[in-house]
Amino acid sequence: MLENLKESVCRANLELGASGLVVYTWGNVSEISSDRQYVVIKPSGVDYAVMKPSHMVVVELLTGQVVEGDYRPSSDTPTHLELYRRFPAIGGVTHTHSVNAVAFAQAGMDIPALGTTHADYFYGAVPCTRSLAKEEVVKDYELNTGKVICDTIEERGYDVMAIPGIVVRNHGPFTWGKDGAASVYHAVVLEKVADMAIKTLSLNPQAVMPQFVLDKHYYRKHGPGAYYGQKE
Amino acid sequence: MLENLKESVCRANLELGASGLVVYTWGNVSEISSDRQYVVIKPSGVDYAVMKPSHMVVVELLTGQVVEGDYRPSSDTPTHLELYRRFPAIGGVTHTHSVNAVAFAQAGMDIPALGTTHADYFYGAVPCTRSLAKEEVVKDYELNTGKVICDTIEERGYDVMAIPGIVVRNHGPFTWGKDGAASVYHAVVLEKVADMAIKTLSLNPQAVMPQFVLDKHYYRKHGPGAYYGQKE
Amino acid sequence: MLENLKESVCRANLELGASGLVVYTWGNVSEISSDRQYVVIKPSGVDYAVMKPSHMVVVELLTGQVVEGDYRPSSDTPTHLELYRRFPAIGGVTHTHSVNAVAFAQAGMDIPALGTTHADYFYGAVPCTRSLAKEEVVKDYELNTGKVICDTIEERGYDVMAIPGIVVRNHGPFTWGKDGAASVYHAVVLEKVADMAIKTLSLNPQAVMPQFVLDKHYYRKHGPGAYYGQKE
Amino acid sequence: MLENLKESVCRANLELGASGLVVYTWGNVSEISSDRQYVVIKPSGVDYAVMKPSHMVVVELLTGQVVEGDYRPSSDTPTHLELYRRFPAIGGVTHTHSVNAVAFAQAGMDIPALGTTHADYFYGAVPCTRSLAKEEVVKDYELNTGKVICDTIEERGYDVMAIPGIVVRNHGPFTWGKDGAASVYHAVVLEKVADMAIKTLSLNPQAVMPQFVLDKHYYRKHGPGAYYGQKE
Repeated sequence: MLENLKESVCRANLELGASGLVVYTWGNVSEISSDRQYVVIKPSGVDYAVMKPSHMVVVELLTGQVVEGDYRPSSDTPTHLELYRRFPAIGGVTHTHSVNAVAFAQAGMDIPALGTTHADYFYGAVPCTRSLAKEEVVKDYELNTGKVICDTIEERGYDVMAIPGIVVRNHGPFTWGKDGAASVYHAVVLEKVADMAIKTLSLNPQAVMPQFVLDKHYYRKHGPGAYYGQKE
Repeated sequence: MLENLKESVCRANLELGASGLVVYTWGNVSEISSDRQYVVIKPSGVDYAVMKPSHMVVVELLTGQVVEGDYRPSSDTPTHLELYRRFPAIGGVTHTHSVNAVAFAQAGMDIPALGTTHADYFYGAVPCTRSLAKEEVVKDYELNTGKVICDTIEERGYDVMAIPGIVVRNHGPFTWGKDGAASVYHAVVLEKVADMAIKTLSLNPQAVMPQFVLDKHYYRKHGPGAYYGQKE
Repeated sequence: MLENLKESVCRANLELGASGLVVYTWGNVSEISSDRQYVVIKPSGVDYAVMKPSHMVVVELLTGQVVEGDYRPSSDTPTHLELYRRFPAIGGVTHTHSVNAVAFAQAGMDIPALGTTHADYFYGAVPCTRSLAKEEVVKDYELNTGKVICDTIEERGYDVMAIPGIVVRNHGPFTWGKDGAASVYHAVVLEKVADMAIKTLSLNPQAVMPQFVLDKHYYRKHGPGAYYGQKE
Repeated sequence: MLENLKESVCRANLELGASGLVVYTWGNVSEISSDRQYVVIKPSGVDYAVMKPSHMVVVELLTGQVVEGDYRPSSDTPTHLELYRRFPAIGGVTHTHSVNAVAFAQAGMDIPALGTTHADYFYGAVPCTRSLAKEEVVKDYELNTGKVICDTIEERGYDVMAIPGIVVRNHGPFTWGKDGAASVYHAVVLEKVADMAIKTLSLNPQAVMPQFVLDKHYYRKHGPGAYYGQKE
């Protein structure tokens, strides 16, 4: 079932593997079926060098049950599923432990919007979630990770597709997009803007960007007034 | 028209793509025709892996109208054009979001001339522009970006070819040179000296270079007394 | 003798050579025979580009005598041997001078457990040993290096396989695992978490991770309750 | 003349080009003939991708006159020659603008001996020279650069072969060794230890290494008591 989707999820995972953001078997990408019943995700702990579409695992969105696949799905699957359930606009999700984004997660800090590279893709600070409470970690940890991500996006009043990423406190980044490939793209951009932000703050801890620059750059690439790139 | 120029602009863009300074479709290089009537520039949002001379876009210097090409020109085209109009010595322009130069742009700081690597190519601090005002961002943003670059060079009393680059506040670097290839070269050097400057300032926030070292290194490579490299 | 072991030790050394953690002939990996009588180790100062299984050196665990091999064993051999003698669970050992882990060694600081990347592999701070005393350096330096590593693990009350690495003060990291390949894996992870920790501390010198997150991540990958990866 | 030497100097320059320490045509390596009458050096501003032994330039040690070669020698030639004239033990010299070593040069700081990676090759802090005076820069700049290097080594009372490198204030590193290849090796090591030192000092500005660790590591690789590597 869903052979085309398995192929595109595999391809997105391989792109992540080639991006320099992950080592060994770290990181995972998923994508949801067009009827939003099933999610196809990378198997847990499988080497990028040998990864094939047939390794991808199909799970049911509502129950998380594996419905096809010879491997266990990524242990982060419940986090991915919560994102898809809460936000119907999300079509793909990526998780990495990329170094610069993790630094903000470990520092417990939002990645501030300091420049146009950030503004081209993220319409505001990329939030850092609160810490999970002990009971949220001990039981249903991965599901609760998904919940704290979704809660944070909602509490901040963000349009989820306008801030397509977050850093989970003491953990690392999750990014999303209209499909798996878009979520990988956002993972790469997030790592780049996190690198820029660390260096900027080392030069000037008070660095800020005016709101109207954020508006301009975000909206020249997104929404009805966009004029960046080629017409489709 | 301008087939040779399209080839050299494409080659300069591919060199930028291979330089490690850009990811995905970021960055752009342009070059002006010898009669200074037309500028050839990279199309917006086209992948470096498939880029060909026939993708390059020809625009009219004075009006910015596309006169040949199947693609939209880079959205930064009005910035490039303003540089060519204001400074007849400029033959090529490059724009990137390279990390270390962006850090200075986001910090709102000049890249100080701290050593001979800098002095070999930039005769003084690489300036950071002022922030654009809201009305300059809302309307004609890319043109106004060009204007603030040119104004900054003029207000500082710089010889534009002796400081072949700048960082635009909250945005990133633009570099230039006698042609597109030279502007790419300066983009690579600028990123390198920005990296050196960040590390230098972390070791010693008071670091400076004497003016006579700047003079010596700049003029041993540039102008009538130059003695670096091979005779042409 | 031990031809299979020589092959796997050579392969683990080549993997280290390809990891980006070492330059020139730096770094070394060893593995102990299943009867724990012999240790196979990289020769001292031999180039990774030409390294073959037949170059590996076999030494006796108790005496350190070379029992087979045309080359001198790594000068760090006595350090490796002490680890094997003191901790029967250790099957392989790796030593590198990787930059970020060395920075903690030179700073005289533990690598603190600041996030889940760390917690997935190291159940607590990766310790920095005390400095060796002058007499420990002058005589039997490499053996004493092994002793201070083992003493540190014991004094901290650590399960040696739950903290599979350490940084030796003013020197650099040693890592271990069930075999040579596992020790290389831990060397790569240690360098990555050291990189993350340096950047985290530059953003927030007070960064910490709750104990229950450490518990959760470590035990979802290790021990009877583990649920990460594929069933064996 | 000196065809073998031209080949080995070309090879050392190509190794430098492949080391990641230089971009474009930056950097240069030279080596002196066994009779110490001639120095063979890289031509100025020639691309590493096309460099051949026949491009190497032969200059006379005492006069600096080109005695063979179709190209101008590196503009840093007078600096190299002064090192050979002052120190008969030096057989090869390398100059780069590698980022981390340059950061110390620009900060005006010695690269302190903080760990065994440093101590394995440099028996003490790698000195930063004083600034040249204006008159030393205006006239015979490259010769005076050589003089301040040699004076610094002598004033510190260093054995020149035990500290095979230096950073020139506001400029960058020069390294040396028994031949050109050894000087390149030291350039690579110096850049690595400078990287380690920057990160160490960011973690702990008071970091130091005991003298007896420096002694031990240096002398286990150098001099009559050395026991590192293979017997020759």
